[in-house]
Amino acid sequence: MKKALFLVAVMFLGITVQAQQALFMGGRQITSPEVNKDNSVTFRLLAKEAKEVKVTGDFAPAQGFGQGSIAMTKDTSGVWSYTTAPLKSDLYGYAFMVDGVRVLDPSNVYQIRDVATVTNVFIVKGGLGDAYSVNGVPHGTVTRTWYPSPTNKLNPVRRVTIYTPPGYEKSKDSYPVLYLLHGAGGDEEAWINLGRSSQILDNLIAQGKAKPMIVVMTNGNAVQEAAPGESKDGLVKPSMMMPGGPKVEEAAFELSFKDVISFVESTYRVKKEKSSRAIAGLSMGGFHTLHISKYYQNTFDYMGLFSAAISMGNNQNSTSPVYADFWGTIQKQIKNGYKLYWIGCGKTDFLYKSNQEFMEKAKKDYNMNFIYRESEGGHTWTNWRMYLTEFVPLLFK
Amino acid sequence: MKKALFLVAVMFLGITVQAQQALFMGGRQITSPEVNKDNSVTFRLLAKEAKEVKVTGDFAPAQGFGQGSIAMTKDTSGVWSYTTAPLKSDLYGYAFMVDGVRVLDPSNVYQIRDVATVTNVFIVKGGLGDAYSVNGVPHGTVTRTWYPSPTNKLNPVRRVTIYTPPGYEKSKDSYPVLYLLHGAGGDEEAWINLGRSSQILDNLIAQGKAKPMIVVMTNGNAVQEAAPGESKDGLVKPSMMMPGGPKVEEAAFELSFKDVISFVESTYRVKKEKSSRAIAGLSMGGFHTLHISKYYQNTFDYMGLFSAAISMGNNQNSTSPVYADFWGTIQKQIKNGYKLYWIGCGKTDFLYKSNQEFMEKAKKDYNMNFIYRESEGGHTWTNWRMYLTEFVPLLFK
Repeated sequence: MKKALFLVAVMFLGITVQAQQALFMGGRQITSPEVNKDNSVTFRLLAKEAKEVKVTGDFAPAQGFGQGSIAMTKDTSGVWSYTTAPLKSDLYGYAFMVDGVRVLDPSNVYQIRDVATVTNVFIVKGGLGDAYSVNGVPHGTVTRTWYPSPTNKLNPVRRVTIYTPPGYEKSKDSYPVLYLLHGAGGDEEAWINLGRSSQILDNLIAQGKAKPMIVVMTNGNAVQEAAPGESKDGLVKPSMMMPGGPKVEEAAFELSFKDVISFVESTYRVKKEKSSRAIAGLSMGGFHTLHISKYYQNTFDYMGLFSAAISMGNNQNSTSPVYADFWGTIQKQIKNGYKLYWIGCGKTDFLYKSNQEFMEKAKKDYNMNFIYRESEGGHTWTNWRMYLTEFVPLLFK
Repeated sequence: MKKALFLVAVMFLGITVQAQQALFMGGRQITSPEVNKDNSVTFRLLAKEAKEVKVTGDFAPAQGFGQGSIAMTKDTSGVWSYTTAPLKSDLYGYAFMVDGVRVLDPSNVYQIRDVATVTNVFIVKGGLGDAYSVNGVPHGTVTRTWYPSPTNKLNPVRRVTIYTPPGYEKSKDSYPVLYLLHGAGGDEEAWINLGRSSQILDNLIAQGKAKPMIVVMTNGNAVQEAAPGESKDGLVKPSMMMPGGPKVEEAAFELSFKDVISFVESTYRVKKEKSSRAIAGLSMGGFHTLHISKYYQNTFDYMGLFSAAISMGNNQNSTSPVYADFWGTIQKQIKNGYKLYWIGCGKTDFLYKSNQEFMEKAKKDYNMNFIYRESEGGHTWTNWRMYLTEFVPLLFK
């Protein structure tokens, strides 16, 4: 008796009054989302007073500029629910709209921020979703640290996220490095959270599909020292429109990229040859990859452009040496040689056309070699996670 | 012109359609929360259709078992708002209730999970809040890694969060170690997120108030290999009632604690003497601290019990050697000597009485030395963050 009481007492300690309140409030346990046996998914929300509840998410048909939303139906106890058709294995994002207010699912603590929006997530297993799950395999280490970037006068110390593979700590080996870059509005938290990069790497390495490697996830906004909330700017509202802009024209990020390479190569046990360096990025990070890989000549043997923001004419308007002589430097890169130039783009991506134009010219005029992966869909994390899963096995072979 | 278009184009790349939708939807920018000049705070939520909107948070007067909530008022444009009285500098949590549905503030991406509840947070600066802020000081490194725990048969590999102080990577020095333990319902993410431990350490070290040290934040639930969402169990709903329970009676966590010490001392550059080891914890973590520090004789010179779940009679009902001969082992700990035994408790904590009883008996019967810090308030993170800020400067002097 005393024993049981003690156990109950201990179990209830260490929670705040707020958490206790949430546990006891309502009294009814709602399960949401629920992945059913046929991979359909049921969402539930208790909202007795609401007039209209909708669910919006990756699985909803597109509606004009954005995701569509689907009406949910209310049962007699005030619980609104909706069950999808069976979904393909993947990681999905969603949120509710309750009488016009965007509401995160109070029954689901799993949420990821994308720029200024927080979205609930869930995984449907049995396919790609497995690649994004934490499985019973050896896990790498994820480190948030700060590196000196003397070239970046605005922020001479910057935050970076680093994945080291399982076994790194106890090994004496040196490892190859993949530099993995985010898009506009993202930061050094994007690939590790939205991109599930550590899960993807853990799983591919465990399956023997990828070489153990270090992944360096930088912050590509030269005006930021760190992700929102992680810098001295405090808990500011994240925005696409950063004060001062992303400093793209000044090529501030590209010019200071040598600082992060130098930090990584002097702090971690890494191989320091071209054949052990890869660089890849999505959207703005694809733009960065394009320019960094040709500006730092003979530095990277592997390039990955995921839905890259290729702008054919940009070099005409900037005075930065990074953008100067676009095709001339591409030509040098081709001449220097590389092992892989991988380009992925979705059929409905608004950057589809500029990617096609780049590839056509590169092939026709310069006989450039690359692997082109065309996928369904558009400019989405669904595609970028999948591209990473396909790209990583091709590295350092 | 081309220049401007290019900049705009690049700035809008790399965000998902969903984020774009959120940016354009509604069209009106709501700022919430807003910390005003007098440290009052204004909350705002656009909810045209709602009949009743309330805000609940750390600053609201308690209401029965939990936090109270405060009615907000609607303006003609459908924006509900409420402004608090001036608040003391601190970190605060809050959420909205919209017609009975718990709603996170869509204008605030800063959220922290506490067991199964996600709460928005904000900081009021100018006092304790500064200690919890990212300031313009050198920052330590935060690492999530996995360690072998052969003593824990349920989970022989477990996740741990480790803070190393600024300069660790480039230094040749060895550092002292603080083991920092969470309460029931928490995990290896609790102190780093809810507890703001890395900010507290960065700031105290920068001010010269604390020695540079390594902080090891374990998972005290022997039945878990990692925090919810970070283990092979998948995106399960966190719960106080873990399947199998926290294995408190078996003392599974205490018995396997030697594994994490061994991992830390063989992986990091740390000092391996009693005088360079501290252990502290909140609630269940205070219980763990109490028992680990006396079971591992002569291992720790610094103990911190924050709102500890001291249970005077527990050792009578368990067969574990960890709990055997409670006062006899305390007596040995006193005889072996230590530098600091720090006990903190809030006046309204439901564990106040058991802490008083422990201290009275320890003083009267065993002449035990400790520092007792009595604070206002109860069993809250507000107190635990403050205790950590006061405790850390006393270590390794």
